Amino acid sequence: MAEKLTPRGEDFSKWYNEIVQRAELADYSPVRGSMVIRPYGYSLWEAVHDGLDRRFKATGHQNAYFPLFIPMSFLQKEKEHVEGFSPELAVVTIAGGEQLEEPLVVRPTSETIIGYMYAQWIKSYRDLPVLINCWNNVVRWELRTRLFLRTAEFLWQEGHTAHATEEEADAETLRMLDVYTDFAQNDAAIPVIPGRKSETEKFAGAVRSYTIEAMMGDKKALQSGTSHFLGQNFAKAFEIKFLDKNNELQYAWTTSWGMSTRIIGGIIMVHGDDQGLRLPPKMAPIQVVIVPIFKSDAEKARVMPVVEQMRELLGDTVRVKVDEREETPGFKFNDWEMRGVPVRMEVGPKDVDKGSVVLARRDIPGREGKAFVPQAGIADAVRDLLAKIQSNMLKQATEFRDANLREPKTYDEFKAAVDDGFARAWWCSEKQCEAEIKDDTKATTRCIPLEQPGGSGTCIHCGKPASEIAIFAKAY
Amino acid sequence: MAEKLTPRGEDFSKWYNEIVQRAELADYSPVRGSMVIRPYGYSLWEAVHDGLDRRFKATGHQNAYFPLFIPMSFLQKEKEHVEGFSPELAVVTIAGGEQLEEPLVVRPTSETIIGYMYAQWIKSYRDLPVLINCWNNVVRWELRTRLFLRTAEFLWQEGHTAHATEEEADAETLRMLDVYTDFAQNDAAIPVIPGRKSETEKFAGAVRSYTIEAMMGDKKALQSGTSHFLGQNFAKAFEIKFLDKNNELQYAWTTSWGMSTRIIGGIIMVHGDDQGLRLPPKMAPIQVVIVPIFKSDAEKARVMPVVEQMRELLGDTVRVKVDEREETPGFKFNDWEMRGVPVRMEVGPKDVDKGSVVLARRDIPGREGKAFVPQAGIADAVRDLLAKIQSNMLKQATEFRDANLREPKTYDEFKAAVDDGFARAWWCSEKQCEAEIKDDTKATTRCIPLEQPGGSGTCIHCGKPASEIAIFAKAY
Repeated sequence: MAEKLTPRGEDFSKWYNEIVQRAELADYSPVRGSMVIRPYGYSLWEAVHDGLDRRFKATGHQNAYFPLFIPMSFLQKEKEHVEGFSPELAVVTIAGGEQLEEPLVVRPTSETIIGYMYAQWIKSYRDLPVLINCWNNVVRWELRTRLFLRTAEFLWQEGHTAHATEEEADAETLRMLDVYTDFAQNDAAIPVIPGRKSETEKFAGAVRSYTIEAMMGDKKALQSGTSHFLGQNFAKAFEIKFLDKNNELQYAWTTSWGMSTRIIGGIIMVHGDDQGLRLPPKMAPIQVVIVPIFKSDAEKARVMPVVEQMRELLGDTVRVKVDEREETPGFKFNDWEMRGVPVRMEVGPKDVDKGSVVLARRDIPGREGKAFVPQAGIADAVRDLLAKIQSNMLKQATEFRDANLREPKTYDEFKAAVDDGFARAWWCSEKQCEAEIKDDTKATTRCIPLEQPGGSGTCIHCGKPASEIAIFAKAY
Repeated sequence: MAEKLTPRGEDFSKWYNEIVQRAELADYSPVRGSMVIRPYGYSLWEAVHDGLDRRFKATGHQNAYFPLFIPMSFLQKEKEHVEGFSPELAVVTIAGGEQLEEPLVVRPTSETIIGYMYAQWIKSYRDLPVLINCWNNVVRWELRTRLFLRTAEFLWQEGHTAHATEEEADAETLRMLDVYTDFAQNDAAIPVIPGRKSETEKFAGAVRSYTIEAMMGDKKALQSGTSHFLGQNFAKAFEIKFLDKNNELQYAWTTSWGMSTRIIGGIIMVHGDDQGLRLPPKMAPIQVVIVPIFKSDAEKARVMPVVEQMRELLGDTVRVKVDEREETPGFKFNDWEMRGVPVRMEVGPKDVDKGSVVLARRDIPGREGKAFVPQAGIADAVRDLLAKIQSNMLKQATEFRDANLREPKTYDEFKAAVDDGFARAWWCSEKQCEAEIKDDTKATTRCIPLEQPGGSGTCIHCGKPASEIAIFAKAY
């Protein structure tokens, strides 16, 4: 039998790395900081892709593709942007056997080259809005990397839109934050806090950045998706201008927004337990695994036709797999628990006699999560159960998050809170104060939640007047 | 009204570039040789993706992702491979502000890094076969580029499989060639000739390469998908070894196969005409465009409810768009013809009176392709029509190809044939002879078709004994 996982409570980081490897989600590559996404991990990415892509298209977006390489001079056109990204750039200097006249940057994000193209395409208010999303790979040369969470190359989507007015661009930025919130909560079963980033934490080149912040199993925060209102910064840098209805030349207003393979790390860290991965049904590549149970060929001959019948009954509506390996049921149970399959169906000789099967839930361990279910109408029963598991996993994660999100009244309480969870507190919005808190506690402002209590208070750290409440936490 | 396209017969290359631009499929980028794939072009790529991905999964393959960057030393491990690719490499020498100790190649294809990972994963015959596909971007620094057909960066899929026996790997190579053939003919409506590449034309590092070759509208050939039997070449270079059933250490047998955004160029060049693009229904992002026709507000008020009703009736089964722009019907007809939409539905006041609509086929110009169809049962009528168009477009392309594929009996006939089409002829298989033919005629061996007449003949060029027939043509 396989070695047990390091318990989550003992060493969270080790537990995480072991799950990623043992569930065969990803592997280290020979290229420093780059990961290999293995088939099981990639099928999670396909679920992320499908869940987001459907929502992007439903909100009027189309996909497109822009070049991997960006001329170095393009990055330099937006001052804050180049300052933010230049330490992390990978640079092509040789191509086709020759030294390039101008080095090409491997895109860390595509605002600049897309800005250049939008300037060619957008001439009139009739060309607006432009609502484009790209599925691609980007490279940010990070020094300390973790599989899925921080890798030199990662997969993501980056949306880039251009609008005739500030209001429209602002509405788009918030609409896409909503799309991320909806996906995180309803598909990935991850409760998130949508909010605005502080000036320090915002995207290099943005006017305002928004984020969804989630609490991981170790009570640290993960920035899980971001949406940026870029104002006219990139429009001015790249001359994205259009004739408005009055025939006057205006700069466009742009946005960008992204979610990456990092969210897979979030799914692992929010839902995983000491037995391994736990996948919300909507994300699970395999939703139901059927394990046949028999001790003799005679039993096998009685069990397998029922297994086959169950597979057929489920096959159209549910992602189902029959585990026919020559291993013990115990080995198989552990293996599928490690891989996080939401429902295990057991079919043994007694089940055949009784016309029932056992359904075991991954989200509720032990006897409590097990039930005998009649074979007749199994498809409906499984569908119902998957829906229950989906909502229960969101409930479990929300309860955990809420139990570890505190509202400290003093700075001492605040320090205790961010040492072991999230703190929600009045904050003065000043960079200096934010830096002091970080030095002191290692906690950063995660976001200024969209949902505010109203009124005003005093800053939890410096005591100055504060008009907004912020979320603080240690973060990935 | 928009300027007319350059006629296809007048300047094929100019006609091609104009279609790509005017149908907004792609655009030139500021990075030499890299293209921007615009939303309409990208939705064609999504149709390619979906059509292939479905077939890959149905044949037991899973998707995964491997790093963009490959250490230079990896490429050097397979001698023919590095010789074939080194003139085209883009090389990262600086990352994170520092000179890299070992330069990183931007993948031109991933056999080497995948070979390295397979060596880690494959230990026993129980781990085989490994059937993995990747959707990604690759870079080959080409000097002369054409949108879709030859670009420095392109999107593709690359399948990489490992097997316990030569027979299995060989069968996989041919199975995937079949998958490409099936996709090309049944989805893209492109008739192809599946066959083996000559020694000169095969993939750098392969034992045998297979290809599907298609005839474009200018009678030149396009290599549209390839499948390679790699033997044990990469297994030996990367030590992909496994214990067989007898507990003996064996090298694995590997394959690779790919289709790229190039196929979009093929779709344009096979089906396009002087009015623009023509898309086979299975590939078309918009299968039916509804153009409302009215001359007054009163007419509009009668027409639009029927238009809306038609959209609803079609909406579930067909990709439909209503063109509500404030342009003339004539402008809209031209515009959608340019974009290759298979069916145009016209709804005017007379149609409302008669309870019918006009359906105009893109594959049959003029009156012959127009019909009045009752509004009742429109969904079935349109589905039937789309199926007819799909098969008619394959028929048209096949007839064109067959009319321009000749079987010359003399070298003079051969030269005439390859000057204006494909030649099928006995060939001695020798590199020297192949090179002479190329020098003389600019035609290359496209493939040695899987379907052979049997028996033997004399080489069309050198007169030596020949055991196989080959296809020769000028090619993209």
